[in-house]
Amino acid sequence: MSWGPGIARAARLAFEASQLLSPSERVTALHLIRDELAARKDDILLANARDMEAADAEVAAGRLSTSLVKRLDLRTGDKWDSMLQGVLDVANLPDPSGVVSYATELDDGLELFRVSCPIGVLLVIFEARPEVVVNIATLAIKSGNAAILKGGKESSRTASLLGETIQSALSKTSIPSAYIQTIQTREEVSSLLALDEYIDLVIPRGSNALVKNIQNSTRIPVMGHADGICHVYLDESADEETALRVVVDSKTDYPAACNAAETLIVHSSLLHTLWPKVASALVSRGVHLRCDGLTQTALSSAKISFAADQVTPSQGSDYDTEHLSLTMSVLTLPSLSDAIRHINSHSSHHTDSIVTENDASASMFCRGVDSAGTFVNASTRFADGFRYGFGTEVGISTGKIHARGPVGLEGLVIYKYMLKSKSGKGHIASEFGVGKKAFKHTPLHTDVPPYR
Amino acid sequence: MSWGPGIARAARLAFEASQLLSPSERVTALHLIRDELAARKDDILLANARDMEAADAEVAAGRLSTSLVKRLDLRTGDKWDSMLQGVLDVANLPDPSGVVSYATELDDGLELFRVSCPIGVLLVIFEARPEVVVNIATLAIKSGNAAILKGGKESSRTASLLGETIQSALSKTSIPSAYIQTIQTREEVSSLLALDEYIDLVIPRGSNALVKNIQNSTRIPVMGHADGICHVYLDESADEETALRVVVDSKTDYPAACNAAETLIVHSSLLHTLWPKVASALVSRGVHLRCDGLTQTALSSAKISFAADQVTPSQGSDYDTEHLSLTMSVLTLPSLSDAIRHINSHSSHHTDSIVTENDASASMFCRGVDSAGTFVNASTRFADGFRYGFGTEVGISTGKIHARGPVGLEGLVIYKYMLKSKSGKGHIASEFGVGKKAFKHTPLHTDVPPYR
Repeated sequence: MSWGPGIARAARLAFEASQLLSPSERVTALHLIRDELAARKDDILLANARDMEAADAEVAAGRLSTSLVKRLDLRTGDKWDSMLQGVLDVANLPDPSGVVSYATELDDGLELFRVSCPIGVLLVIFEARPEVVVNIATLAIKSGNAAILKGGKESSRTASLLGETIQSALSKTSIPSAYIQTIQTREEVSSLLALDEYIDLVIPRGSNALVKNIQNSTRIPVMGHADGICHVYLDESADEETALRVVVDSKTDYPAACNAAETLIVHSSLLHTLWPKVASALVSRGVHLRCDGLTQTALSSAKISFAADQVTPSQGSDYDTEHLSLTMSVLTLPSLSDAIRHINSHSSHHTDSIVTENDASASMFCRGVDSAGTFVNASTRFADGFRYGFGTEVGISTGKIHARGPVGLEGLVIYKYMLKSKSGKGHIASEFGVGKKAFKHTPLHTDVPPYR
Repeated sequence: MSWGPGIARAARLAFEASQLLSPSERVTALHLIRDELAARKDDILLANARDMEAADAEVAAGRLSTSLVKRLDLRTGDKWDSMLQGVLDVANLPDPSGVVSYATELDDGLELFRVSCPIGVLLVIFEARPEVVVNIATLAIKSGNAAILKGGKESSRTASLLGETIQSALSKTSIPSAYIQTIQTREEVSSLLALDEYIDLVIPRGSNALVKNIQNSTRIPVMGHADGICHVYLDESADEETALRVVVDSKTDYPAACNAAETLIVHSSLLHTLWPKVASALVSRGVHLRCDGLTQTALSSAKISFAADQVTPSQGSDYDTEHLSLTMSVLTLPSLSDAIRHINSHSSHHTDSIVTENDASASMFCRGVDSAGTFVNASTRFADGFRYGFGTEVGISTGKIHARGPVGLEGLVIYKYMLKSKSGKGHIASEFGVGKKAFKHTPLHTDVPPYR
């Protein structure tokens, strides 16, 4: 059972068996997992210490970055406690499955229901942070999906012990323990990516390169989070204080996040009025500006002095770059239409914001910008599952199929149609048609699925 | 503009421009298309006659099947009129975009809306029937998506004239005419499959081989319709009349359809009671039965006489075969659990039906069978977008991402989040957190999007 097909088949069978259990069983399992993790805390942190030692040696040898090692550490701050609390928080969210989204009577006694249900088997591939094993396992179990998890090799001791702990808790329930499996090697991932008869969805959480690489290697659907190249556009009618607040927050609140702004577009009417003030505010917070000719010249003529390296000329590639740091690309454009066209060509379709006092401009921006989030006078940093009120976040999808933007538990379910003949001697299609019975299609006002 | 990148880029720009138009413009366009088709009827049917002549020559040379040629013909029966009526029917359906599925107040004056919107650019690949050009163009325009259409080469004259007619009608609207484009060659398709920056979704309508081949050749998401290997399971408690009606209808109502049943599973308690009656009913309607040992022996001992070729022993592969004809694979199993396991292993996850008088069995079947449709005492033939009440059908998806089962216009939309700061000086994320403001997440009871 340790090689790709065995793992995938075991996951599929575990998923299928779990479909016959009450959804409450999954909530029970999450509580048991939390308790089992608490009971094995010392062992897990010891494994984590060993991963850290090995990683430190890699850093000393120059093969690993210090920042990656930091992300490995389960022992810092309240990381452990919040990991455990996260399990309970997700356990307490509403069940995303069993939700009726369409119900109609096709004929007397023939009722059709569209009912949300788990997708099946997920393959989730992520990088260093070992607590992601617990986060993803929790989301998968809550939403009713089996999952195969592959973490970074630097956290392999921690990740595999977390996986064992979860399986040990599952063994105390009716859910098969192969419901959650961890794997360690890239070879296993490659082997799994070919198994579309067992695996329904691949979720890569990591770099853009990882996502594209996986999309190129499988016909299994991929729910990937690619770059976050977010824009703020200052419209002709922008209010000064609003502009300063939204631009500064979008860029500086947490520059390493995918929802931080990377590019500022200034309407050309603002070049000598609002723009120098916005630039000063950004520079005073340590932001490096990469400016096009007009925005740079405007700063020179405004006679504001900056350190030489804080305002530099942009290159074309800056407008397609996710800086993930206190660097911002800037350009000016003569109209809202031009701004929309620029954003649609250069944005990663994640989140883009307009600062405007004009409702027609807001409307045009929100309809015209083809991104998961189109914001008005609000920081791009609000694009987040918790801030949106989902209670949790599976990831942020920049794709346009199935789920888009911040993805909550709803992104891990699909639906099936249940058709129930309640009366007579069954319902058959040949009784309908021209000169025969007609379909009623009477909406049923119910949120209760026929079977649960 | 005639090669892949040019076509795809033109489609993307047409889509983006269309987002700024009122949705009513798309309905106007559909009416104009219908009128333009009516005006050019003679020319189009002439092109169709030429396609037919060329196809007849291919048939004579043994390179094409007669049944394919029949599907080419736009002049038979009411095909032309119903194609034109279909345009108006879809025009009159509710707009699938602009639907609010989540609305919440994050903070005073900060409102979040999840609003359905078109996906973007579709690449639709289909086989012989030329009227599909009009069907798909209609669905794409109604749902707000640009589309690139590739039909079978046998219908190229008709398809390209239909495409020109649609573009000519679009040129009378504000919608760019590159919104709907037709292409002719496989080389163009290959080139387009690489262009994931322009194309959002590929919809292959055709054989399983076509779907798999496309899934293997692109990282663009694919909404494919694969085999329909549908099952009927006769539960221990099945009612005789219901069983006869449902099995016969599922198999014989239209055997070439993907929602026709291919395999019958008989509970072993019914081998000498219900099964011989069901077998007689099927055989009397010309069905050929491929039976496992027990079901065949049961027929022998029931002393029912059949023509020798109507009841033959099954081979293993029969249970993974979409016969698409009056042939049915039959097996017996000792329990409902076994039936569910067999279906989950051999079904194409399209539609499967149980005949039962036992509600617990119905519940177990509907929850345990991992298919787009799980039916109780109803023919598998009901699995259809029109019968489900969608007013139209984009296709039937056996995938488990985005859309599953019969797909209506809803399958051609996704959503975006619009976040609107309505008061104060804009909203910024750094004002929220521990010791600062908390998110309200108060549901907004509205179905009106902020911008439309």
